[in-house]
Amino acid sequence: MNYAYERLPDAGTALRLHLNENTAGCSPRVLEAMRALTRTDAAFYPEYGEAVDACARNLGVAPDQVLLLNGLDEGIHCVSFACLQRAEDGTRREAIVVLPAFDMYAACAEIASARIAEVRPGPDLSFPIGALLSAITPATRVVFLASPNNPSGLTIPRADVARVARALPEGAVALLDEAYVDFARESCLDLTAAHPNLVIGRTFAKAHGLAAVRAGCLAGHPDTIARLRHFLPPYGVNVFARTAIVAALADTDYLNWYRAQVSESRRRLYAMCDRLGLRFWPSEANFVLVRVGDGAAALAREMTARGVAIRDRSTQPGCEGCVRITTGVVEHTERAIALMEELLCDGR
Amino acid sequence: MNYAYERLPDAGTALRLHLNENTAGCSPRVLEAMRALTRTDAAFYPEYGEAVDACARNLGVAPDQVLLLNGLDEGIHCVSFACLQRAEDGTRREAIVVLPAFDMYAACAEIASARIAEVRPGPDLSFPIGALLSAITPATRVVFLASPNNPSGLTIPRADVARVARALPEGAVALLDEAYVDFARESCLDLTAAHPNLVIGRTFAKAHGLAAVRAGCLAGHPDTIARLRHFLPPYGVNVFARTAIVAALADTDYLNWYRAQVSESRRRLYAMCDRLGLRFWPSEANFVLVRVGDGAAALAREMTARGVAIRDRSTQPGCEGCVRITTGVVEHTERAIALMEELLCDGR
Repeated sequence: MNYAYERLPDAGTALRLHLNENTAGCSPRVLEAMRALTRTDAAFYPEYGEAVDACARNLGVAPDQVLLLNGLDEGIHCVSFACLQRAEDGTRREAIVVLPAFDMYAACAEIASARIAEVRPGPDLSFPIGALLSAITPATRVVFLASPNNPSGLTIPRADVARVARALPEGAVALLDEAYVDFARESCLDLTAAHPNLVIGRTFAKAHGLAAVRAGCLAGHPDTIARLRHFLPPYGVNVFARTAIVAALADTDYLNWYRAQVSESRRRLYAMCDRLGLRFWPSEANFVLVRVGDGAAALAREMTARGVAIRDRSTQPGCEGCVRITTGVVEHTERAIALMEELLCDGR
Repeated sequence: MNYAYERLPDAGTALRLHLNENTAGCSPRVLEAMRALTRTDAAFYPEYGEAVDACARNLGVAPDQVLLLNGLDEGIHCVSFACLQRAEDGTRREAIVVLPAFDMYAACAEIASARIAEVRPGPDLSFPIGALLSAITPATRVVFLASPNNPSGLTIPRADVARVARALPEGAVALLDEAYVDFARESCLDLTAAHPNLVIGRTFAKAHGLAAVRAGCLAGHPDTIARLRHFLPPYGVNVFARTAIVAALADTDYLNWYRAQVSESRRRLYAMCDRLGLRFWPSEANFVLVRVGDGAAALAREMTARGVAIRDRSTQPGCEGCVRITTGVVEHTERAIALMEELLCDGR
């Protein structure tokens, strides 16, 4: 195996600004709903009707356009195994990963036996639409896209998403990972009507603070969703996730509160970057990529040791010298800012 | 697709004796441990060290011999995709399913592109060791075994498990599903030391009453486990499951209580069968297969309508005329017995 998702070492007691989690936790109402589950709720194979309906309503699609997931990771697995296994004559299918990218795309494509084509980012981490279109071949079966992208926080122009969908060969799917779309200006979900080969991935891990509960979904054209459904187990979503999905979608106040925190946190982090003369990318996610220079890895280590875990991303293509900092709860962002300013000014 | 796991229609308010769930629910201590989780526990990607260690200790193996699962279904998926995808030249691999069997075996083998060879049961649902050994070919890559079997409740002789492992070609795995082993006299886990190609599947769904929480594991030789690990996502097990695993393994009182209930329930159901002159198979699981004759499907429907859901298994090979009844909580078994006696005596 050449690709794998590496679990990070435990951050210990450090403030967790390294995995784009909601550091306030899930909504109190969601926790309450999960705590109301009983001994027999835990014991009986769950029904999903209400949670599917809630997701569909929230997304503005029909229930047969939604697949609940044990976290969006399961959606990446599902699309990979549905589309990327070898052809009948043994030919390997191809997956295209647009770098920098979430490690799971290539890891899942590889275990599904695919050949992986990596497309490097355009200048200044711009979306490399030309290079991507050139990378599509008759053997392409999955293109992994993320908008907003991780770790840049940049979105893909809607027109580019449509161009990719139009350029794909028969049987191929573009999986557009919208894990961070709750912090962005718009979604591309509506493009699935005109492009049945476009599948949207969503998660409750980030904005809703449910990473450990494992809840996500795929959404798209009913025929594509029906094709993918075979590749998911019948009871893969746990009852806490099912309950949390319904409660989280009902609690718009909490989502709006966290979104406002993210917005303010990004603003404050940008201001710090301006004060320190650091390059950053304006983000539509709950994190910001900042170029700190040669000392990126050392800075991430030192900040973690001093109680605020951030992520070194300097080895990712186009991210040379960069760290990624979760910008969620304002109070937590302030701790990161104070520590970064101290460490970076000390070093000058 | 020719194979699929069909979700059953909702049993409504009927007593659920149709899916071999623990109808008492999970242990109160396990529920308490899950309810103690906080908003941030829900939000942070979970660590699994303690749960892996607890499983390993419980099984008497090393931590690197255990893979936690989002329910044992995920283990069936994992083994299928790890072992059954097409060869480089496109040749299909073969999976052997010993009938009657859990639907997920063939469903998972099929989505991993395998050809499925079905071996019919021996006389009186005995384990068809001869036919199974004859079905193994150089293309065999997975043999799905279940002991105790579902729906017969019969176990596979240990010597036969070892014979299957010895007969498999290089690269093949025998997955022994021990979902119901908590109700049986013994496990075959110790055979994995001599047979690295034998993998044991366990679940917390049945004896521990955690079907909706999704918690299981695979156990086996460290090299085999390492090979399978690539096919699982890094954070697939939710934090409630992780917490429940540790709490459930610590609460031996609850497990022993439920085991004693199962034992007594089986005894009472056997007695009913003797009174009514019905054939049954002595079970090492928390259910009993009973031959009621031509009216099996109608009986299952009628019992469900009258408030006690049981499962028609009459279309399964070797199970002609049979229903399967969960034999867990004695009080619940008594309700099934009373209703069955009423309906079957009425009909005579």
